[in-house]
Order: sequence, then structure tokens, then C-alpha cells
Amino acid sequence: MTEAERSALMALAGELADAAGTAALHHFRTADLGADSKLSDAFDPVTAADREAEDAMRAILRQQRPNDAVLGEEMGHQPGSSGLTWVLDPVDGTRGFLAGTPTWGVLVAVSDATGPLYGIIDQPYIGERFMGGFGTARMRGPRGETKLATRPARPLAEAILLTTYPELGTAEETRAFHNVAARARLTRYGMDCYAYALIAAGQIDLVIEADLQPHDIHAPIAVIEAAGGIVTDWRGGPARNGGRVIAAANRAVHAEALDLLAPAGD
Amino acid sequence: MTEAERSALMALAGELADAAGTAALHHFRTADLGADSKLSDAFDPVTAADREAEDAMRAILRQQRPNDAVLGEEMGHQPGSSGLTWVLDPVDGTRGFLAGTPTWGVLVAVSDATGPLYGIIDQPYIGERFMGGFGTARMRGPRGETKLATRPARPLAEAILLTTYPELGTAEETRAFHNVAARARLTRYGMDCYAYALIAAGQIDLVIEADLQPHDIHAPIAVIEAAGGIVTDWRGGPARNGGRVIAAANRAVHAEALDLLAPAGD
Repeated sequence: MTEAERSALMALAGELADAAGTAALHHFRTADLGADSKLSDAFDPVTAADREAEDAMRAILRQQRPNDAVLGEEMGHQPGSSGLTWVLDPVDGTRGFLAGTPTWGVLVAVSDATGPLYGIIDQPYIGERFMGGFGTARMRGPRGETKLATRPARPLAEAILLTTYPELGTAEETRAFHNVAARARLTRYGMDCYAYALIAAGQIDLVIEADLQPHDIHAPIAVIEAAGGIVTDWRGGPARNGGRVIAAANRAVHAEALDLLAPAGD
Repeated sequence: MTEAERSALMALAGELADAAGTAALHHFRTADLGADSKLSDAFDPVTAADREAEDAMRAILRQQRPNDAVLGEEMGHQPGSSGLTWVLDPVDGTRGFLAGTPTWGVLVAVSDATGPLYGIIDQPYIGERFMGGFGTARMRGPRGETKLATRPARPLAEAILLTTYPELGTAEETRAFHNVAARARLTRYGMDCYAYALIAAGQIDLVIEADLQPHDIHAPIAVIEAAGGIVTDWRGGPARNGGRVIAAANRAVHAEALDLLAPAGD
């Protein structure tokens, strides 16, 4: 891939995140949001935000990259012929969105058969964008634009661990997580995809989750690896298919946490 | 109190929040933050943020309101003679601050013997300020300025409940909380003082916490009550002394949750 092709893909990823963010924000913290909706409803304002945001991204891709595949949360897989797939989560963290917390985000990744090449984690309410891949790792936010770099190695006993819910998935998965949490310096909950951004930004050491979909993790993989971190499944293998995922600021803290998770990973 | 006196107090509260936010942001997400600090250390960058932010507020108060009392998290109680007390938490949610999450806030309240009269919950990284009391309930944020109003009544089964940690305090307190959580539509964690702002903004229904200090709750009481909500202890009495606190969008959901908490409140 030429430098020009990479630049074009990065610019397009930004355009997709812009479009999705605008569509999702239109529904964020609206007065009726949640008033009549239930998490189990097939259609509610959160779903509307999700669909409209994914629609906006797919419309751009149809026009500009008709030969690329698209894998999106709401509308499934659209095959392509270019070898590239856009992996999209229009509103990652729909429950956070529903509660009005600025912890949800738009996830955009462009991937090939080896995994994510470039990704964006975008929180449009705060106005923060975390970008990584193709040799770059940067963030733009309320205080301007800076490089992203994960934290240097420190023991798990000094590490900060984030996840979204204290109950990760199965009882075994939850037990494995709390094995790690019990040894970490600080465990916090509720951050949705924003937790992955905080690893890339050098603020925390670990995110551990279970039961993820590919669209949940492609963009975080790209951003975190570009910033110097590592993202795998609980056995140390590739995380791009989702499932049980551990993201770490560096190999040392990754290895220490993996030892505690591995029994559940078998 | 005259209208002019109220306006002066509101303007001064804003000035205090500005000064504290600037001081705290100076330390937020700095590269060294957390690198050498431990939660148990007497002095670390989080403590520096806390102290400098409270110093900044106390310096303004000494000059402009020398006869008012001050109750601050870091520097304790400074008696006064006016009957008014400024209740200050320079960085509420120091663990969120340490993890880089924009869930911490500056809390400023001006109170008399009856409780908080006016309060501000400020999240300076996002640039959001929630203000309530003296007949006003407003927020200012990335999308401009709007009125604050809590949600209309809905059953607990449709309510959104927030708290910071799944372990609230004692085992009995944690059990009581999970009694309510088990019946709510959605429970989320990790929001620090931002959770109280979300009640006032009409996004969620309940916040339940234990082991609070007066400086944690005076500003939320002012903002939430001004927006139409209710804040009490777990027995339905005043919450201004801290301890076990429940904040609710309306009396109906407050009553339903209180019934489930009350056994622990005795």
C-alpha cells in the first residue's frame, strides 16, 4: 500500500467517525431517550442512534470504497473484493449512551486478513478522538492534539484495571477477572470503549472484558498497538475475533495478568 | 437575602469552580500522574491537584468573603460569623482522576444551617457545569446552556441506577444496594460525582452511595433539588451530613428504592 493510499484511508476513517458522531449525538441526551425505550425493545432511540450512525458510514463507503467489505454492528457483513474490511461500531456502549455518560464511542477500523490496520475511537460529546495505525498514534481533544503512548511497565500491584461491568460474562470469566482485580492497585468500572482509549493515552494499564464482538475490538486493537500496547485473547492469541479480550499498556503487565486469566481461557 | 446578594454568591461560586478547575486540570492526565504515586501516599499528584484547587478557592474566599465559614476536603473547617459556609470538594472522585476518566468534578456549595442553598458540579475537562439553587437550575456544556430538570416518575423496574463502586461500604450496605440494583432496569458504575449531575440533567433516576462526607454531597443536593429531584439518607432524613445517601429524580422512585434500603438504614 502506498503512502497516499494509507493517507486516503486515514482521512476516510475520520470522515466516517465524523458522520457517525453527528448522527449519534443527535439522539444523545434527548428528553425522550429512555423514557419509552427498553433495553430489550427492537427499536428505541438508542437503536435509532446506532442505525442512523451506521447508515451514515455505509453511505459514504458505498460511494467512496464500493469494493471494500463492511462489517457493522447493526447491519452485518457486506462482502467486498479489495481485501479490506471496514469494521464499524456506530455506538459502542449503548447502555452508557442510554444513561447519558460520555463513555460510549464511535469505533471505526479498516482491517485486512491479518487484523486491524488503522482505527479510531471517537467520543463526540467530549470532542475526543483517538487514532492509531499506519505508523501514527495520536489523539485530539479539548486540550488540542498530542501523541499517544502507553504507560511504561509496572507491576500489577501498581496497575489500574478497567472494565465495564463487574459481571463480565460467565461465572468462570467473572472469577478470573476478579483474580486479576484483587491484585491490581485500583479497579474501576463503567467506561465502555473509553477504557481502551485510556490505555492508549497512557492513563491506565489494563482492560479485561469477555463476550466481545469483532466490531467492539478492531479499532481498540489498532489504536492501542500503535501507542505501544498489546491486545490479545485470554490465551495470548489474536483478539480480532472478539470473545475474551485483554488489552495492556505493555508486555510485562500483560504477562502478569494473563497468568491469572489463563485457567479460564482454556 | 436580597436578589443582589444571591447573584453575588452565585457569581462567586462560579469563580471558585473556575479557579479549582484550572488548578486541577493542570495535573489531570500528566505523564507522571500515578507513575510514582500510590493511593495511600500522603502526597502524590492527585493530592497536589486536590490541594492546589482547594488553596485557589480558599484564597478567593479569604479576600471576598472573610466572614463566611469554609468546610473543605483537604484543609478542614474554617469557622465564620456570617451564618454561611462554603462547602468545597476540590477534586471529587480522586480515583477517577487518577485513572484519567472525566468523571471527577469540582464541587462548590454555599450552605446555611438548613443545608445547601446553591451548588455547582463542574467537570472542567469536558467543560460541563451543572448549577442549582436560588431558584435556578441550569447546565453549560459542549452544546451550550440549557435548563436542568429531572426525569418524570417511572417504576424502579424502568429506572437507571448509578453508583461508583459495586462494593459501597459495609457488607450490609452493599447487600442493600444490590437489593435495589436487582430490581432496576440498568445499573452502571464508575461515575463519581458526574452521576449526580446526570440525575439533575434528566438522564438517570437514582444514585445510591454510602460513606460520604458532607463535602461530597452539599453541591449535589443543591443541584438535584433545584432540578426537581430529592436527596436524603437511607431513612429519608437529611443527607447534608453525608453517610448513606440516595439521590432520586422524583419522589416516586425515591420511595420505591427507599423501601428496599431502609432495613440497612436502621
